[in-house]
Amino acid sequence: MDFEHSERVQELSKQLAAFMDEHVYPAEPVYDREVGEGERWAQPAVMEELKARAREAGLWNLFLPESEVGAGLSNLEYAPLCEIMGRSMIAPEVFNCSAPDTGNMEVLERYGTEAHKKAWLGPLLAGEIRSGFAMTEPQVASSDATNIEATIVRDGDDYVVNGRKWWTSGAPHPHCKILIFMGKTDPGADKYRQQSMILVPLDTAGVTVMRPLELFGYDHAPHGHAEVDFTEVRVPASNILLGEGRGFEIAQGRLGPGRIHHCMRMIGQSERALEMMCRRAQERVAFGGPLTDQGLVRRQIADCRMAIDQTRLLTLHAAWKMDTVGNKAARAEIAMIKVVAPNMTCQVVDTAIQVHGAAGVSEDFGLAHSYAIARMLRIGDGPDEVHADQVGRLELRKYN
Amino acid sequence: MDFEHSERVQELSKQLAAFMDEHVYPAEPVYDREVGEGERWAQPAVMEELKARAREAGLWNLFLPESEVGAGLSNLEYAPLCEIMGRSMIAPEVFNCSAPDTGNMEVLERYGTEAHKKAWLGPLLAGEIRSGFAMTEPQVASSDATNIEATIVRDGDDYVVNGRKWWTSGAPHPHCKILIFMGKTDPGADKYRQQSMILVPLDTAGVTVMRPLELFGYDHAPHGHAEVDFTEVRVPASNILLGEGRGFEIAQGRLGPGRIHHCMRMIGQSERALEMMCRRAQERVAFGGPLTDQGLVRRQIADCRMAIDQTRLLTLHAAWKMDTVGNKAARAEIAMIKVVAPNMTCQVVDTAIQVHGAAGVSEDFGLAHSYAIARMLRIGDGPDEVHADQVGRLELRKYN
Amino acid sequence: MDFEHSERVQELSKQLAAFMDEHVYPAEPVYDREVGEGERWAQPAVMEELKARAREAGLWNLFLPESEVGAGLSNLEYAPLCEIMGRSMIAPEVFNCSAPDTGNMEVLERYGTEAHKKAWLGPLLAGEIRSGFAMTEPQVASSDATNIEATIVRDGDDYVVNGRKWWTSGAPHPHCKILIFMGKTDPGADKYRQQSMILVPLDTAGVTVMRPLELFGYDHAPHGHAEVDFTEVRVPASNILLGEGRGFEIAQGRLGPGRIHHCMRMIGQSERALEMMCRRAQERVAFGGPLTDQGLVRRQIADCRMAIDQTRLLTLHAAWKMDTVGNKAARAEIAMIKVVAPNMTCQVVDTAIQVHGAAGVSEDFGLAHSYAIARMLRIGDGPDEVHADQVGRLELRKYN
Amino acid sequence: MDFEHSERVQELSKQLAAFMDEHVYPAEPVYDREVGEGERWAQPAVMEELKARAREAGLWNLFLPESEVGAGLSNLEYAPLCEIMGRSMIAPEVFNCSAPDTGNMEVLERYGTEAHKKAWLGPLLAGEIRSGFAMTEPQVASSDATNIEATIVRDGDDYVVNGRKWWTSGAPHPHCKILIFMGKTDPGADKYRQQSMILVPLDTAGVTVMRPLELFGYDHAPHGHAEVDFTEVRVPASNILLGEGRGFEIAQGRLGPGRIHHCMRMIGQSERALEMMCRRAQERVAFGGPLTDQGLVRRQIADCRMAIDQTRLLTLHAAWKMDTVGNKAARAEIAMIKVVAPNMTCQVVDTAIQVHGAAGVSEDFGLAHSYAIARMLRIGDGPDEVHADQVGRLELRKYN
Repeated sequence: MDFEHSERVQELSKQLAAFMDEHVYPAEPVYDREVGEGERWAQPAVMEELKARAREAGLWNLFLPESEVGAGLSNLEYAPLCEIMGRSMIAPEVFNCSAPDTGNMEVLERYGTEAHKKAWLGPLLAGEIRSGFAMTEPQVASSDATNIEATIVRDGDDYVVNGRKWWTSGAPHPHCKILIFMGKTDPGADKYRQQSMILVPLDTAGVTVMRPLELFGYDHAPHGHAEVDFTEVRVPASNILLGEGRGFEIAQGRLGPGRIHHCMRMIGQSERALEMMCRRAQERVAFGGPLTDQGLVRRQIADCRMAIDQTRLLTLHAAWKMDTVGNKAARAEIAMIKVVAPNMTCQVVDTAIQVHGAAGVSEDFGLAHSYAIARMLRIGDGPDEVHADQVGRLELRKYN
Repeated sequence: MDFEHSERVQELSKQLAAFMDEHVYPAEPVYDREVGEGERWAQPAVMEELKARAREAGLWNLFLPESEVGAGLSNLEYAPLCEIMGRSMIAPEVFNCSAPDTGNMEVLERYGTEAHKKAWLGPLLAGEIRSGFAMTEPQVASSDATNIEATIVRDGDDYVVNGRKWWTSGAPHPHCKILIFMGKTDPGADKYRQQSMILVPLDTAGVTVMRPLELFGYDHAPHGHAEVDFTEVRVPASNILLGEGRGFEIAQGRLGPGRIHHCMRMIGQSERALEMMCRRAQERVAFGGPLTDQGLVRRQIADCRMAIDQTRLLTLHAAWKMDTVGNKAARAEIAMIKVVAPNMTCQVVDTAIQVHGAAGVSEDFGLAHSYAIARMLRIGDGPDEVHADQVGRLELRKYN
Repeated sequence: MDFEHSERVQELSKQLAAFMDEHVYPAEPVYDREVGEGERWAQPAVMEELKARAREAGLWNLFLPESEVGAGLSNLEYAPLCEIMGRSMIAPEVFNCSAPDTGNMEVLERYGTEAHKKAWLGPLLAGEIRSGFAMTEPQVASSDATNIEATIVRDGDDYVVNGRKWWTSGAPHPHCKILIFMGKTDPGADKYRQQSMILVPLDTAGVTVMRPLELFGYDHAPHGHAEVDFTEVRVPASNILLGEGRGFEIAQGRLGPGRIHHCMRMIGQSERALEMMCRRAQERVAFGGPLTDQGLVRRQIADCRMAIDQTRLLTLHAAWKMDTVGNKAARAEIAMIKVVAPNMTCQVVDTAIQVHGAAGVSEDFGLAHSYAIARMLRIGDGPDEVHADQVGRLELRKYN
Repeated sequence: MDFEHSERVQELSKQLAAFMDEHVYPAEPVYDREVGEGERWAQPAVMEELKARAREAGLWNLFLPESEVGAGLSNLEYAPLCEIMGRSMIAPEVFNCSAPDTGNMEVLERYGTEAHKKAWLGPLLAGEIRSGFAMTEPQVASSDATNIEATIVRDGDDYVVNGRKWWTSGAPHPHCKILIFMGKTDPGADKYRQQSMILVPLDTAGVTVMRPLELFGYDHAPHGHAEVDFTEVRVPASNILLGEGRGFEIAQGRLGPGRIHHCMRMIGQSERALEMMCRRAQERVAFGGPLTDQGLVRRQIADCRMAIDQTRLLTLHAAWKMDTVGNKAARAEIAMIKVVAPNMTCQVVDTAIQVHGAAGVSEDFGLAHSYAIARMLRIGDGPDEVHADQVGRLELRKYN
């Protein structure tokens, strides 16, 4: 295990942190104001300004390993950078490293045809468009992928797509142009060969964004999480990714990187919450002194520090495994951080909320919002229970 | 300890449960729609209809113990009724038993003059107006009441009130007419004699509702939680409650009942979450069977049941103590439930969210909203840390 | 729910507490010394003295509800008494209320013939002999009673008993004369009819106490927990309880009372640990003041108090249910306390250990020993997992 | 961060693991038998045989970094080796790497004079003698080192030592010849300059090993944990380490390595418990299948795996910091693992106990013993609370 970062990565970390200080943190209230005051579902001007600046600074598309079109960083190298971005809700998009786009770009890069890449990967890498991933369905427990009811049926030179999806994050965004859609091409096939993924442009007839869903009261405009209806949606047969029955395989490939990115961001989010907690405890006075005079508060701070450090190391370890033995062989490690990181962040942010008192649940400090995001990640991309079960099964396999 | 309920209470429980089934639960989506579609900060018509019906059914003002104007129920007797109301976010107001009105009515009944009662208690009991409690301040750790910076200064026949308050729940409601305001009359006095409470009609010059605060993204319109500014607010000297320097004493008296009502409602809220969890687990199928086939899910359900039952018993015990030895002598018991009940509810609702998957964090099932309410109560009316510390100190006193 | 205690019970509580103060607590070091210095597996003289005194004081056999031979107390009435006894490891035997004898006496009283009663119940009630319960087997997961491999085979006028049991508590005690043995009479029958219970006098040929087991290093001499071998053990056919195939039914009946007694004792044990923790925290000085100056210690104390009070109420509630609707209808409530009480005690005692520092794990304060007992009870009489699962299943049944 | 292990360390790991398989695990029951059947406080013959073999194999004194007399391994390099040794209670002594000797040897190597080294370090490194560390006192909270009451008073060419110590591990061992004693030379000095450390040969007049203490019922013969009395114990002035008032400084230096060794062993101990848990769950059948069919058991296994991996990484990180920036600059990292590792081990072993059922608390599987050791380490070398508080203070310092 070598988690040492190269000089290049250290340099990038420094640049990124400086960019955050200079541009991103100060822009947070501006972004909130633009969203709050204008048309909620329009792209705030400040975001496009930030993106332009970040691209100019070379802090762009840092996420894509083993590819000529990315920054050439490994997962391990990307980890500290992604963590820094995770400190601000608006930062990942600034650097064109936001979910679900990074996962989708990785799919297109790994499994897309040249035509797919030209049509969609290029504009995504340029930050000109955004994308969505339509997998989860409201009617079934989608953590068991065999439950999926959406269909992708061949009809001549087309596929006809039908189904209802929700939590298709980003679909309501005005820049969102393309969806990766998961559905069944052959419900009678072996259970890992029933599914396929297909590209569905958002403006195809029959695609309807029904509503943005709320996450703990937050609609996350203009990004949003949509319920999307697909009724007799017809796309060219060439839009299929890899071929019929390969959906599961792509999901396996896509979800690993997407998951670890989330975990890296969770660590940054937790660090920021801990920093806020420390500063608040130093400023607020109760019962004769600053909150930091209370051993209980110091213990809460210590518990957060211990939890964050352990999670970061586990995430680095998973990244290192992905880089060295591949995503499939690293699946236990990916599953572990997928459980550990969001739970840790929930705990850390919850503690920060408590130390902030009533301010903590309000919109003034962003902590309640941060909690909602972390809480969602205990479910999104597979609930804790499913990942932990996989960890348990893989552990037991050692003794068979 | 006798927690047996009289026939009258059993009868009321039955009536209340039936009323909930027939009128309240079906009205929940109507209420949400009226709030969502119309003017957010207006009273939904359905609420007034429900109130009229409840009053007619005699299910009205059930909360006020030891008073001629209430239903004549003790805290213990009120507990099962309040729990039932707690199952629906909209129910307490339907039965004129909602926070912060019940606590405020109790203050007026116990500490108000005849004039205060006539002006404010009457209309509150009639459900014609609502009220707010302005204690917490954004600039200081208000859990230490000696930190409060708001001032109440005598000037001739008036008091002049200045300060900034927030989390004044209910202040944005169109029916809200009166605030109980806490501030310092004598910052130089003994620390438990510095504070006073005074009645401030919301339409007094200098009172400005600055903004409704968000609780985890929920604004709780039309009730809301407001930041309120008081600048040179002048009210008649007779508006003071009990007299200068009695604020702490009133707070002690007010907060006990208010706190236990919250806990009773938390239990109802938890029961509903558990019921939803069980039903969902029975309906959803994953990995070859309903979720209830999974031992882990059954364990989650069992843990919730064990936690709820313990909390209910602890709450009944506290109510019984309040009834038999008084609120002051029952302060350890009140402090205990104030810690236990919201934490338990957070845990139960969080589990219910997890069992619901992505549906759990959405607006479709109300669970994320329920969580936000419970989470707030780990802070509101004093954070866990303050109440637990009191429990610890009182325990140690046994061995001095 | 009426948990009010009658005057008689209040009077007994007072007498019992006084007896503990005067006789039992001072005898603890004497008992330890006698066991430590003499023959470990002999009855210490001080115990027989205490028993004589307790019997004389009328504090004897307080546990047996609905029977003419007991004190005529209900489960609810016995609860506070049993809790007091639970404060000292040696107390239950002093009052002839110790495990496994109380459960065994209850079996004999409910299911025994007149001959059984005369031979065994009489001497047990008189405190002249002790008894054991031989159910758990080393070779199989005995929490699933269908796993049991021991056999009880009819042969003429006898039954022939074969099997290996362990954790047969009390079997090494010099006073132990009789075992209730559980085994299969008909492995081919319906799974709840395969088992039977039979009385096996300890001095029967073929019964061999192999070794006393250690519980976390404690051998609990002279009581002990034995591994016992049964090879071709022949007892009269009349020794069977109720008849062949009734073992499960008796187990259900026996285990309810036995379990709740354990829980009542756990509460007393926890109360004593909390008292010790408070006193220790008041005496010990660190970092400039007594440990009670530390908010963290006060929080630990508060958490214990809250946990104990909830558990006591849950236990009283279960007792009340057993008294009012019967052991079978109260099985969810019994299962709940069986999970809650030992876990709570582990937590409370563990905290007390931590507050005591190195003294806490030593033999000087009895806390490590207390922990071991509580930890065992998360397994004994069925592990947490089995009871919690039953709670979950019963909860789900409400919605079928 | 580079946790990669050199070829030499990988080779040593392999050798060590093979030695464990071939010699140590099979010797465990032999060791237990020799201790149980013979004179409890004698060195079992099997241990001396194992030591000879280990020394011959070059698996000896692997612990001492930055020294010519050790194996030349850094803390990071030692970590995987120490973890392997931690899998067996008897292993560390086999490889001459057991507590408290490693810490004491490190003290002698760093702070001892040539004479000290010759007299004591040489025989210790040769495994001919053993040693103790006399710091903790029964009368005071020794976690606050300023509480220590033992005195070291200069009298001519001697120091006269007085005091009562306990938990002096290893003192009862027949090979124990030397104690490092901590006491006050100048109670009036600055609080970090009051203390000194001095070498006290066990056979000095006035040194009395009063009793071996029990840890959860285990006396750990022949090693043991002693209460030791020092009355007018006279040793040459040259026995003082570094000089008067340097005790604190030495403690800081000594305790870092000692603590991390314990944590490394904890990880090995946890791994073994997890392995046992997995194997047991695969073998035992309940309710129709092996325990591994139960999702709850798989979750328990997963939780253990996630906890162990995080703790190992945190420990490697602390070792790497000690190696690269020194023990003092790594004090936050050392404090963190000191809290995290024993708590994790308690949790893992407790789970393993539960999966084993009644077997888990018995002497047959060593799990209860393992728990006792881990539980002690939440107190020994400073309780959780003290270390966590330091972590909290160091975190807050970042924002001052």
